[in-house]
Amino acid sequence: MLEAALTHARSRQGEHLARLCDWLRIPSISTLPDHAADVRRAAQWTRETLQAIGFDSVELVETPWHPIVTAEWLGAEGPTLLIYGHFDVQPVDPLGEWRTPPFEPQVIGDNLVARGASDDKGQAFAILAALESYLKTSGRLPLNVKVLLEGEEEITSPHLAPFLRERRQSLLADAVLIADQEMLAPQAPLILYGTRGNVYLEIEVSGPATDLHSGTFGGAVDNPFNVLARLLAALQDGTTHRINIPGFYESVRPLSEGERELIAKAPIDDPIGLYLIGAPALAGEEGYTLAERISVRPTLDIHGIMGGFTGEGGKTVIPAKATAKLSMRLVPDQQPEEIARLCEAYLRQLAPPTVKLEVRTLGVARPVVIDFNSRAIQAAALAYERGIGAPAIYFRGGGSLPIVRDMIDILSHPEREEIPIVLIGFGLPDDNTHAPNEKLYLPNFYKGIETVIHYLDIFGNT
Amino acid sequence: MLEAALTHARSRQGEHLARLCDWLRIPSISTLPDHAADVRRAAQWTRETLQAIGFDSVELVETPWHPIVTAEWLGAEGPTLLIYGHFDVQPVDPLGEWRTPPFEPQVIGDNLVARGASDDKGQAFAILAALESYLKTSGRLPLNVKVLLEGEEEITSPHLAPFLRERRQSLLADAVLIADQEMLAPQAPLILYGTRGNVYLEIEVSGPATDLHSGTFGGAVDNPFNVLARLLAALQDGTTHRINIPGFYESVRPLSEGERELIAKAPIDDPIGLYLIGAPALAGEEGYTLAERISVRPTLDIHGIMGGFTGEGGKTVIPAKATAKLSMRLVPDQQPEEIARLCEAYLRQLAPPTVKLEVRTLGVARPVVIDFNSRAIQAAALAYERGIGAPAIYFRGGGSLPIVRDMIDILSHPEREEIPIVLIGFGLPDDNTHAPNEKLYLPNFYKGIETVIHYLDIFGNT
Repeated sequence: MLEAALTHARSRQGEHLARLCDWLRIPSISTLPDHAADVRRAAQWTRETLQAIGFDSVELVETPWHPIVTAEWLGAEGPTLLIYGHFDVQPVDPLGEWRTPPFEPQVIGDNLVARGASDDKGQAFAILAALESYLKTSGRLPLNVKVLLEGEEEITSPHLAPFLRERRQSLLADAVLIADQEMLAPQAPLILYGTRGNVYLEIEVSGPATDLHSGTFGGAVDNPFNVLARLLAALQDGTTHRINIPGFYESVRPLSEGERELIAKAPIDDPIGLYLIGAPALAGEEGYTLAERISVRPTLDIHGIMGGFTGEGGKTVIPAKATAKLSMRLVPDQQPEEIARLCEAYLRQLAPPTVKLEVRTLGVARPVVIDFNSRAIQAAALAYERGIGAPAIYFRGGGSLPIVRDMIDILSHPEREEIPIVLIGFGLPDDNTHAPNEKLYLPNFYKGIETVIHYLDIFGNT
Repeated sequence: MLEAALTHARSRQGEHLARLCDWLRIPSISTLPDHAADVRRAAQWTRETLQAIGFDSVELVETPWHPIVTAEWLGAEGPTLLIYGHFDVQPVDPLGEWRTPPFEPQVIGDNLVARGASDDKGQAFAILAALESYLKTSGRLPLNVKVLLEGEEEITSPHLAPFLRERRQSLLADAVLIADQEMLAPQAPLILYGTRGNVYLEIEVSGPATDLHSGTFGGAVDNPFNVLARLLAALQDGTTHRINIPGFYESVRPLSEGERELIAKAPIDDPIGLYLIGAPALAGEEGYTLAERISVRPTLDIHGIMGGFTGEGGKTVIPAKATAKLSMRLVPDQQPEEIARLCEAYLRQLAPPTVKLEVRTLGVARPVVIDFNSRAIQAAALAYERGIGAPAIYFRGGGSLPIVRDMIDILSHPEREEIPIVLIGFGLPDDNTHAPNEKLYLPNFYKGIETVIHYLDIFGNT
């Protein structure tokens, strides 16, 4: 059954490429209302493809905005796998920087160039092609499969969590498989077994009733910018880079030696970091490696400061207020709301009575860690070895993936372990996702199909 | 001679008002090229008026932009007084907020409303009317008088210093009289015996080669905003409000008990300060009163911070650079270039090797202090008492007046005391100079003429 599927996939590479190109020709840009009909066309194409592959119950489900497509094949004895992906794409501007039209896919050398080639139609289609390779050769799959493809991933999936809650019973599974990320290199496949959370704050310091002239009033009043600089500086130690907010590290889950060893295997070292960042030198939390600093340790970054005079030349104003935007990347088990509360309490303790302080939370995302020893994850590592021919690198992502957190919260059995979310991918770091000239490295596409075939086999039969 | 001049001035109030209105009708806005001909007309009006008053040698001097008018009457035995003023005015926008047309002077109650009524045509004309009152009644003045009226004061006098240097010999005097400021109230005349200086800096911290995603790279690199906040916070103690730059206070001239007593007489207290500023509370340098903090003590104010993300909502960027604008008000004998050097040296010592630091000087103004015991200043105090009927308040201005510094530097005798600049004025705090509905309180105008008559008498005869 495995061999037949693999043989089928290998003999149909041209056909799979052609069908992916059909999907890519639909400009399903979810953020632009003018493209709503295109997103719907992409959903319809998805429904028809799932039906053609051999799925039993395929459904195009309406949401308040772009539709979701679901399907299932439940004829196996083994475990149940939920597959997630998305058929919407990023906008294409600046259009002038594309060397080929973004919705006219072209093979250039080893790459397929088009918007969505890597993020995520190409990767999602690799899964569909793997499923088809089984169904067309054996008439069945090695395990039960539920499919959920949405059209709002690029606009932060506003209707996904409500849908997961509403359809929870029919979506329950033993694991979720998502192929929507990059490998580190063609021979460096990646398993992301967690992501950081985030809490985004605005800190506003206001003082004088209006802007004042610094000649007339300078010396008489706390300048909100001077105070804000002191508050911001107090948040982090400049030498150790530790965050000074009392209680900040209290709920950080300790890093085991085993996990440190795993992370140490990631091919991320200081010369690579310095090359990518281009700063005079790297800097980070005392006692942690670069790989740890960007994945399993929390951070604090100021993004911008508003207010006052920022034009050309000099204006001698004492601004009435100053507002900073900052965010903290969080790691399990830090809760963003709790960290926001601790931060505000600390700032209130530091702020002088000469100013008014306001702290607003603009956004939160909870951190995720997935048990990399779970069967579903270990199956992915083995599938990579068989499909790509290289051992998997385990890493926790530095950014946030709110949908992953939502899936865990909504789809886990309340009395069992959290549902494992298997985060794999066949993109590459230079795929230009979200940028002009997005591409997919075709050897990864074909090996990706085989990797998923192996995954279905391994997870279904162990 | 004094009594005749006073009687003449009192009997000609209506005529003086009418002639001032003629001057005010000329829209001599120096900053707008379309009004260059009007500035020239105002200069010509000035020349003709000085001739009509009885000045011997009146000259309209060309500069690369707006002309200067000079005159002199050197028939006395006594000291020589240089009178400075300006006939250019501020723009009038927003025009819609004027209740009467800005260049159609109108008497409304006790006020004359027009652009330039207070700043500076009204005040300059008070001096001209005083001079005329002497010349028309006695045919002579109690002292030698040189007059210098310019048309570029509102555009920071770009050609005044070169002119002073070029004509130094013919402009030499024992004192300079300038009436271009406000009293604190109709019965609170003010002698400004100094101004603070200023050094305006831009402090740029750059790190990564480009903006980075804080999810991917957060924790690996010193965020330029985090570093800048620490550098800015290190510049000043948040509790004592002392500036931490080593050497910053070294050249600050100590404040004598006598001067502290003088400043303590200014009607500036905390409730007034709090009312004007509208902050939750006042704040300032430990050990100094509000009046001292805003006049004789140096300050540090951040004006704005550029770079990064300042739009709506949240963007998780590690900005490639962050730039602060800040300035320090300086007091005698702090030199702005030296303070800039000390500040940069301190910041370089603090800045980590993970970033690049650049410090740019955008502007400098040197501080001024004038010996309030000099005969020329004491004469002004007595003239106020006789002309206004109230004792003078002595104060040092918190802002900067570069022309005053230039006059001292260029016109002082190298081996004698600095030339005293007598800074008086007949405006009021609510005159709306530089704003719509500028006005002059007419009782101040008439008392101002008499004050100047007294001044010429006192300074000429003591």
